[in-house]
Amino acid sequence: MKKDVSSIEAALRQYLPQRDDYIRTVVDSMEYSLMAGGKRIRPMLALAFSKLCGGSEEAVMPFACAVEMIHTYSLIHDDLPCMDNDDTRRGKPTNHKVFGEAAALLGGDGLLTLAFETLVCEQARRLNGAEKCAEAVSVLAKCAGAVGMIGGQIIDLESEGKQADHEILRIMDKKKTGALINAACQMGCISAGASEEQRKAAEQYAYHIGIAFQIVDDILDVTSDETTLGKPIGSDAENHKSTYVSLLGLDECRKISAELTEKAINALGTFEGDISELVNFAHYLLHRNQ
Amino acid sequence: MKKDVSSIEAALRQYLPQRDDYIRTVVDSMEYSLMAGGKRIRPMLALAFSKLCGGSEEAVMPFACAVEMIHTYSLIHDDLPCMDNDDTRRGKPTNHKVFGEAAALLGGDGLLTLAFETLVCEQARRLNGAEKCAEAVSVLAKCAGAVGMIGGQIIDLESEGKQADHEILRIMDKKKTGALINAACQMGCISAGASEEQRKAAEQYAYHIGIAFQIVDDILDVTSDETTLGKPIGSDAENHKSTYVSLLGLDECRKISAELTEKAINALGTFEGDISELVNFAHYLLHRNQ
Repeated sequence: MKKDVSSIEAALRQYLPQRDDYIRTVVDSMEYSLMAGGKRIRPMLALAFSKLCGGSEEAVMPFACAVEMIHTYSLIHDDLPCMDNDDTRRGKPTNHKVFGEAAALLGGDGLLTLAFETLVCEQARRLNGAEKCAEAVSVLAKCAGAVGMIGGQIIDLESEGKQADHEILRIMDKKKTGALINAACQMGCISAGASEEQRKAAEQYAYHIGIAFQIVDDILDVTSDETTLGKPIGSDAENHKSTYVSLLGLDECRKISAELTEKAINALGTFEGDISELVNFAHYLLHRNQ
Repeated sequence: MKKDVSSIEAALRQYLPQRDDYIRTVVDSMEYSLMAGGKRIRPMLALAFSKLCGGSEEAVMPFACAVEMIHTYSLIHDDLPCMDNDDTRRGKPTNHKVFGEAAALLGGDGLLTLAFETLVCEQARRLNGAEKCAEAVSVLAKCAGAVGMIGGQIIDLESEGKQADHEILRIMDKKKTGALINAACQMGCISAGASEEQRKAAEQYAYHIGIAFQIVDDILDVTSDETTLGKPIGSDAENHKSTYVSLLGLDECRKISAELTEKAINALGTFEGDISELVNFAHYLLHRNQ
């Protein structure tokens, strides 16, 4: 896994635009957040599904990095004062604390745009062909757009200070976290030329680890400490946000997240290749401490 | 021209995502700005170049609309308090004045993402083929990204309150306005399968009308009135922004914008088809009053 993370980070850096004196600030803002660490879960999933379906790492890499760029832009915009107004992220000052709000806004816009440029870059088109690149653009745009991730963010925004029920939480998280995790898994399948059946199985895996991921996030917000988590803990309660923990309690959350992880692993039954990497990955997400 | 505007607006509306109770606010925010009128210059250019190069209107329409979505998102984000902090646009309250800053931010992100979804929608792929769609994604992302439009916005931001010289103004406008106008012209060429030579000529046309457009904008900021322009006049001077008018004076600006328009028209010499629409368009942009 460590080897994957370092090849992903090398690729991410290489896709950043060339700096000149005029645009330095916005490229610095993009780089600051893109290279700020993080677990690289989404590109790892893209790589793992591509490998499972017989694809090449070189071909899927631009697709994998594009999903991470979308994830990063969403964090930058989410941290802005008009959204969650967060000061720290991954143990570092948030983007707008370093570059100011305007350059953070533009840095986010720059990464969102760069994601699509990367999906059709020379390397991506040469190794995947235009059909797969166009399909990747379509899937990523849908998952990241108003019916996907952005839709989840608006639900989140509108349920602040209100008591959200389990149903709304599920719909919100399916969009806010699940959609991009699904996009990552689909990127791997598309690059490798997976069948419709395989893409559906990947979607099932993504759906279940996505909800489990969010439940573990809610658990960690209560049980972890700021140094380990890299951001303040207890922020959900402070913002009067309903979470799985506030609705169901810690014990029930631990039980459900373990069950969802099992369901995710069961969805891998369709594949003929070696699923151990994705099985381990699901367990890693369940037992992570940050 | 009016006929083109109404078919563009019908298409734009049709590409908006389906609303449901959960995501209504963000789709309303997207629609509010996308359907707020405006001159539709960029999609008109895409249509005109496609026609000139023998393409079909149905095939170029998604490409044309995608450019307008990018333009609209950039206006929403540009108007935000952390950027230009504008209250009116096209005679109406700006997006964040109606929906609040968070929904305006997300509405802009939604339109930026929708632009790329539209470039590879079923209609676009069926009528243009995946190769042209991938090329359209690549060109639009480059023109709208950090080395293009977003780069222009960061230069604009950093030159506020400073005396910018003619050279910086030219580089800024080439990126901030010119890049997306070029993207629009290229979208038409790509959809129609234009040659490299034709694409270069379209770029020359775009470059010259782009600068002329910005100079006329600066002239109107001084000579027009708020009702005609749909936004407050004199805002450049108020924000201590250097403009072509403040650097060169009104008379020189009128002379240069006319010369640039002639250069744009000369670039059309390469094409064998009927260039009258694009000639008229260049004159319309020069003599517009808003």
